[in-house]
Amino acid sequence: MTARAPRHLHLNVNILHSGFVPSAWRLPDADPRAFIDVAHYVRVAQIAEAAKFDAVFLADNASIADQIEFRPITALEPTVLLASIAAATTHIGLIGTASTSYNEPYNIARRFSTLDHVSGGRAGWNIVTTADAGSARNFGLDAAPDHAQRYARAAEFTDVVKALWQSWEDDAFIGDKTGGRFIDTDKVHPVAHRGEYFSVQGPLNLPRTAQGYPVLVQAGGSADGRDLAARHAEAVFSASQSFEESAAYRGDLLARAAAQGRGPEAIRVLPGLTTIVGATEADALRRRDELVELIPWRYSLTRLAGTLGIAPDRLQLDERLPDDLPLPAAGNGNHTFFHATLAQARQHGYTARQLIYALAGGGGHRVVVGTPEQIADDIERWFRGGAADGFNLMPDALPGGLQDFVDGVVPILQRRGLFRTEYEGDTLREHLGLAQPPDRRTSQQQRAAVAT
Amino acid sequence: MTARAPRHLHLNVNILHSGFVPSAWRLPDADPRAFIDVAHYVRVAQIAEAAKFDAVFLADNASIADQIEFRPITALEPTVLLASIAAATTHIGLIGTASTSYNEPYNIARRFSTLDHVSGGRAGWNIVTTADAGSARNFGLDAAPDHAQRYARAAEFTDVVKALWQSWEDDAFIGDKTGGRFIDTDKVHPVAHRGEYFSVQGPLNLPRTAQGYPVLVQAGGSADGRDLAARHAEAVFSASQSFEESAAYRGDLLARAAAQGRGPEAIRVLPGLTTIVGATEADALRRRDELVELIPWRYSLTRLAGTLGIAPDRLQLDERLPDDLPLPAAGNGNHTFFHATLAQARQHGYTARQLIYALAGGGGHRVVVGTPEQIADDIERWFRGGAADGFNLMPDALPGGLQDFVDGVVPILQRRGLFRTEYEGDTLREHLGLAQPPDRRTSQQQRAAVAT
Repeated sequence: MTARAPRHLHLNVNILHSGFVPSAWRLPDADPRAFIDVAHYVRVAQIAEAAKFDAVFLADNASIADQIEFRPITALEPTVLLASIAAATTHIGLIGTASTSYNEPYNIARRFSTLDHVSGGRAGWNIVTTADAGSARNFGLDAAPDHAQRYARAAEFTDVVKALWQSWEDDAFIGDKTGGRFIDTDKVHPVAHRGEYFSVQGPLNLPRTAQGYPVLVQAGGSADGRDLAARHAEAVFSASQSFEESAAYRGDLLARAAAQGRGPEAIRVLPGLTTIVGATEADALRRRDELVELIPWRYSLTRLAGTLGIAPDRLQLDERLPDDLPLPAAGNGNHTFFHATLAQARQHGYTARQLIYALAGGGGHRVVVGTPEQIADDIERWFRGGAADGFNLMPDALPGGLQDFVDGVVPILQRRGLFRTEYEGDTLREHLGLAQPPDRRTSQQQRAAVAT
Repeated sequence: MTARAPRHLHLNVNILHSGFVPSAWRLPDADPRAFIDVAHYVRVAQIAEAAKFDAVFLADNASIADQIEFRPITALEPTVLLASIAAATTHIGLIGTASTSYNEPYNIARRFSTLDHVSGGRAGWNIVTTADAGSARNFGLDAAPDHAQRYARAAEFTDVVKALWQSWEDDAFIGDKTGGRFIDTDKVHPVAHRGEYFSVQGPLNLPRTAQGYPVLVQAGGSADGRDLAARHAEAVFSASQSFEESAAYRGDLLARAAAQGRGPEAIRVLPGLTTIVGATEADALRRRDELVELIPWRYSLTRLAGTLGIAPDRLQLDERLPDDLPLPAAGNGNHTFFHATLAQARQHGYTARQLIYALAGGGGHRVVVGTPEQIADDIERWFRGGAADGFNLMPDALPGGLQDFVDGVVPILQRRGLFRTEYEGDTLREHLGLAQPPDRRTSQQQRAAVAT
């Protein structure tokens, strides 16, 4: 048995158009068109790559958001946008979101494998099930399938995508010009999947990539989501408001993964973290308040009500939140943000307005406000204490908020030996310290060896 | 009434991995891995852009091809690959293929709009319906839907995609930082489509692009295909073996378009054209023969039989083709290549072997073999005679065959005043001389004006 390798801190940057705070586009140095400007995304990715981040992360929606009169939307499709970013970077990972509810596994396997090929093995797929009714109505449905159905489809979908990614053995490509043999067809296998949601014959029409296949990322906080993550995810973009909650979440996830035969080295838990950096704590708080006050209160209240699954008129800015909020109807909605937001409000007895300040106008991810030293302390505590393997950073504003983090916080993390000063590998799997996945033949041999 | 603008010749390059001849990957200077190497595609695109081509063109398949032991396959997904090419080029158009049978209109509208945004208005979508059974089996079907059904779905699919691309008025985006207004929601409209194949509420979650929306490209040669092209296509990638056939095809297509209220300025007919360039005609023929002889005859016979919809054992290399070949069963298969191939064989009384030489081992597009002067003459005759508005070039080998064309043929075309020496615009629509499509409000106003 080999000694367990030391854990390393991982950092992704979530390029949420102009930044996580909905008013970031109104800052003096912001370009309101950034949300559809590839140069903006490239600039942010290059700042993150210069600081040796593991990856950029792009969320996605399959519908137009509400309240677009007030703030940018997730617009550009991630795999296409990431391929442009790939061409302008050399090392940083490229994680894009795609829905299992409104796509076909063969198409997703191809697009992410293509992204993995064009980037030299830097791709990751963030698996989401897409709960909103607006998306459903763009794909022939009146409402999203219920929670359990979405997750059952997602689990089968992911099985099929992985099988397609494993349908070529590592050495199936020959390319022997003299002999005229291009591919060894004995090493390219059908998938022949017949399941509840999908029938897919395969094989994929793409060979393996530099990292085997893209890294699987997932974000589910519900029991179904945790089971999906335990089975498939190699990185988890979680949402936890407190150290204790996150440590418990990570422990639960690793236990579920262990039950599937996967050790702790197989999964990285990376909570979302919004950072607001200031030279002093007072400066940072002032920045947060200014940003929050640039958001129309009507927008913030409506958004908060949406997270809680209630009508906006049940919330009053200067009153405490209702005590009797049930989980949103039919098990739909985003469980993670519902719980995280409520927990935050109850712990501190916040009014709606105070809660909106604490969330920096956001939807439920944790917000840290302070000096670089304070933020580095927070990150170190969570990492060393087992509440996180790293973070999915969601800077208040982009690129400025990321630049502040990179200039202020990263050097401290590096001095403390927590974060790399150079890339040690070329692929996203190498950055995250994840094993190269076996191809189909090797994985069958491994299973056969275990069985005998 | 304004005078009609002079016609301009248009040239695309079809980047079919290592080149159109199936043995191109075996040439001494070829890299067998080119089919999955983004640098190869970028290099070809840059050669074409330096020569001021209108666009690169990428075919696509949603399954693994037959006979992969002998030659490269269409592997990388076009929209993702084109986004990487976009980042390494500045002017050349980027046309990618996507199937209407195995995608959803909302996803296709988003991906191509994203490609159009990241490229500054250089995207085109080549609409295909995907006839092969292998693709069907990757998407839950045992066989492809029949020809009529595929085209009915394609027509409705394209209607929905165009409606989504028109769901934002040109000036819907405001981005007023002082006033805090991001989007004028009165100028973003639902699509509310309820049809036979699709229900799509919309709007799209992306504003209009620099060229309004991507150029619509289509390749259908059947009656259904021509109707689809007449209704929607702005560029047609056709397949004709003779001048007369192509002139008749173009005339028929323009007549069908006129019946839909679309003038000849609305469509560019660009036949596929494989070029094999030599310093002398004998050199060029020698190059063709060497390339054909590097393809295993078993491969070429099987491919030819596939195009004709018959079993390979019905063909003998040194016998003439059977006279009694019916259109492939159930109206499926590729009508265009079936007819073009048979016409070629019958006109010259070719044996299978002679036909395979004439087709350069290919699937039915026209092959010209000769000196730069001879090829330029051929192009000029087709263009001036109304058989083509330009060509979708499919060089024998890439990048070498394209470089030969660019060095030898393009300067002659430029001297004759047929082809541009500089780009005059920045978008694909500008290169092709196509009008910027109106947004929804303008197009409704135009319809209302016609009606009164």
